[in-house]
Amino acid sequence: MIRHSATLALNERLRAKQAAGERVLHLGFGEAGLPVLPEVTEVLTSARRRNEYSPVAGTAEARAAAAGYFTRRGIPTEPDHIVLAPGSKPLLFTLLTILRGDLVLPSPCWVSYAAQAAIVGKRVLSVDVPAESGGVPDPERLERALQEAKAAGHTPGILLLTLPDNPTGTVAAPSLVKDVCAVAASHGLTVLSDEIYRDLVHGEQQVHSPALELPEQTVITAGLSKNMALGGYRIGFARIPDPELRSSTVGVASEIWSSLPAPMQEVATYVLNEPDPVREHVKASVALHSAVANAAHTAFTAAGATCRPPEAGFYLYPDLEPLREKGFRSGAQLAGHLLDQHGVGVLAGAEFGDDPAALRFRAATSLLYGNDSDQRWAALRSTDPVSLPWIAESLTQLRDVLSAVFHGE
Amino acid sequence: MIRHSATLALNERLRAKQAAGERVLHLGFGEAGLPVLPEVTEVLTSARRRNEYSPVAGTAEARAAAAGYFTRRGIPTEPDHIVLAPGSKPLLFTLLTILRGDLVLPSPCWVSYAAQAAIVGKRVLSVDVPAESGGVPDPERLERALQEAKAAGHTPGILLLTLPDNPTGTVAAPSLVKDVCAVAASHGLTVLSDEIYRDLVHGEQQVHSPALELPEQTVITAGLSKNMALGGYRIGFARIPDPELRSSTVGVASEIWSSLPAPMQEVATYVLNEPDPVREHVKASVALHSAVANAAHTAFTAAGATCRPPEAGFYLYPDLEPLREKGFRSGAQLAGHLLDQHGVGVLAGAEFGDDPAALRFRAATSLLYGNDSDQRWAALRSTDPVSLPWIAESLTQLRDVLSAVFHGE
Repeated sequence: MIRHSATLALNERLRAKQAAGERVLHLGFGEAGLPVLPEVTEVLTSARRRNEYSPVAGTAEARAAAAGYFTRRGIPTEPDHIVLAPGSKPLLFTLLTILRGDLVLPSPCWVSYAAQAAIVGKRVLSVDVPAESGGVPDPERLERALQEAKAAGHTPGILLLTLPDNPTGTVAAPSLVKDVCAVAASHGLTVLSDEIYRDLVHGEQQVHSPALELPEQTVITAGLSKNMALGGYRIGFARIPDPELRSSTVGVASEIWSSLPAPMQEVATYVLNEPDPVREHVKASVALHSAVANAAHTAFTAAGATCRPPEAGFYLYPDLEPLREKGFRSGAQLAGHLLDQHGVGVLAGAEFGDDPAALRFRAATSLLYGNDSDQRWAALRSTDPVSLPWIAESLTQLRDVLSAVFHGE
Repeated sequence: MIRHSATLALNERLRAKQAAGERVLHLGFGEAGLPVLPEVTEVLTSARRRNEYSPVAGTAEARAAAAGYFTRRGIPTEPDHIVLAPGSKPLLFTLLTILRGDLVLPSPCWVSYAAQAAIVGKRVLSVDVPAESGGVPDPERLERALQEAKAAGHTPGILLLTLPDNPTGTVAAPSLVKDVCAVAASHGLTVLSDEIYRDLVHGEQQVHSPALELPEQTVITAGLSKNMALGGYRIGFARIPDPELRSSTVGVASEIWSSLPAPMQEVATYVLNEPDPVREHVKASVALHSAVANAAHTAFTAAGATCRPPEAGFYLYPDLEPLREKGFRSGAQLAGHLLDQHGVGVLAGAEFGDDPAALRFRAATSLLYGNDSDQRWAALRSTDPVSLPWIAESLTQLRDVLSAVFHGE
């Protein structure tokens, strides 16, 4: 039986604890934790009478807007390259259904890639990421793993990269992307580049898309769930330059989901044309994500954890190896202890395909921004969000819990 | 390569012809052709700030409303039996992914069942429907086909029924459903009952769901695309009483589409609670569908076609066998002639799995109600819609075209 997605399941469990009045520190779910931009709700309202079936690939307006979105990021794109969908998950699932060969994943990586591969009956080959960043396998390990897989009679066909990365909150450097793309090219792999966090890079660093290295062999998937906090609207899109692959994708899409809802096509059009209110909203979100993720990072490292500094999005992936001498033997055991004894929800590394014995987990910091729309707007507008009482309180709770597990009896 | 769904593809082709200024008679697409109830647009507007991820199975409110919808129709249902999705297509696809065994389909049947089976790699066994109605295979033929399939080493596992039927626009009688369910039970088949048209029965006839015969073995799928003309909103739901199957469905759903968009959960809740405006809207829609489908039925039979009288929804499935002596050799050739020479869009029977040589096609009458919202509202409110000028004109065009193909040179 296919299990309920780990992230969604933990979210539902923590929400139930909260509803029962327990104080929880919810670090377990990748929701952006921010309110909808009012201009977006106005677009949805104005589109409320759109009850016709949309074209499967998306309306001409939405596809043109998505093409512009990529083109402005240095990746020249035609509207005909675009397919929209109710989220990026159905697009990834459809591409895994169509593309041949085994799926090569970085380890750790987002929970759903391997789960989707299991549903479509695909073999998975996991390759560790380097120490400096996640989302992209170490190129030398990748080369070795591909040679070994081929020697064993397997047929690696697809390399999935996450730029920026979930769960590590980091961005692979351009040189690393280039090296990995060279390996992918020499083995004839199609690259799926999940760039759903690309607008949430904290600093000046640019995302170097594999599409810049392997224009024809790369498919980019993205969506509005993270940059615009529109997870509940379910809007995803893909850039698929290869005509045959795009045509197959539209074919499968027409049989699985028909089209993105018509009112959401208009939302996608508005957002992907990136008018000023959208740009400013994303910019303010990035500042907030960065401030809170960095404060949490300080809490983890001060307590004794090792953790890559956050570079994008709202995730940390700390390693609490020193706790092994306290008797912890697996990430799941540690995550269970944090949830049961301290009301802290995190997802163990094993959920991301990491070594189950490692004392690593993903901590999402985006649900600390507030419990209601007023608090979240205040956080978004604050120049010093970590000093807001409700955020400061959560960070204090995090420090206290870490102190207790590292230094308590 | 998976082809673009035939119905969606024809729709896009006809829309392009219309946009180019050609006069077309669009009988090719199963869109309900009606405007959105204003109360529904108000619900969507009030839900515009709902950007959180919903529970995978649906919100408690939406599931309770869907349970009430089935319970009021004589099928006792708990909220925990319900899974919502962005359309009924993803639910059917997911069920075909999970359930084991070959898929048994009535012939003809909706275009996407076999296409979905092809995507998930399932063998299909087609069994002709009886003369009186579609959507349910002839029970004796079904028994014989199952025995032959098993003797050949195959493993039939799923029987899909469509009640009421697309493409024939008919409703299988209760005795037929009972007989077919008895065969399904004796062979241990799971029954998938697609009841997306169940609210659109024209007369007093009741839909006899297989869930009444085989409560635990039957899954019902439905949605708001047809009864409420909300195809563009993409709202589907399923009743899955078996706990393990439901849990697997939620698991696969969590990896393919996460959840129905949050604003649409509120629309589903409102509609499925069936307040008076919803009931009246559906009732008026049924009267309109019946009037126009019956007028078109008269046009077909008067011209010389054989055609089951319409009993539900907005489809006819005429047989134009007398045209064979005019040189027509296949349904596709006939449909192509109608499109190219007369601007009439219909879908050949072969698209529905019917004998390609048969001169049968599906004619959808729901796009005749008008070209804009004003005309469609007028049609919905009229006590004699076929006398409205734009509908009368389309029916005249249909009669003229049929006269030309039956009696022209």
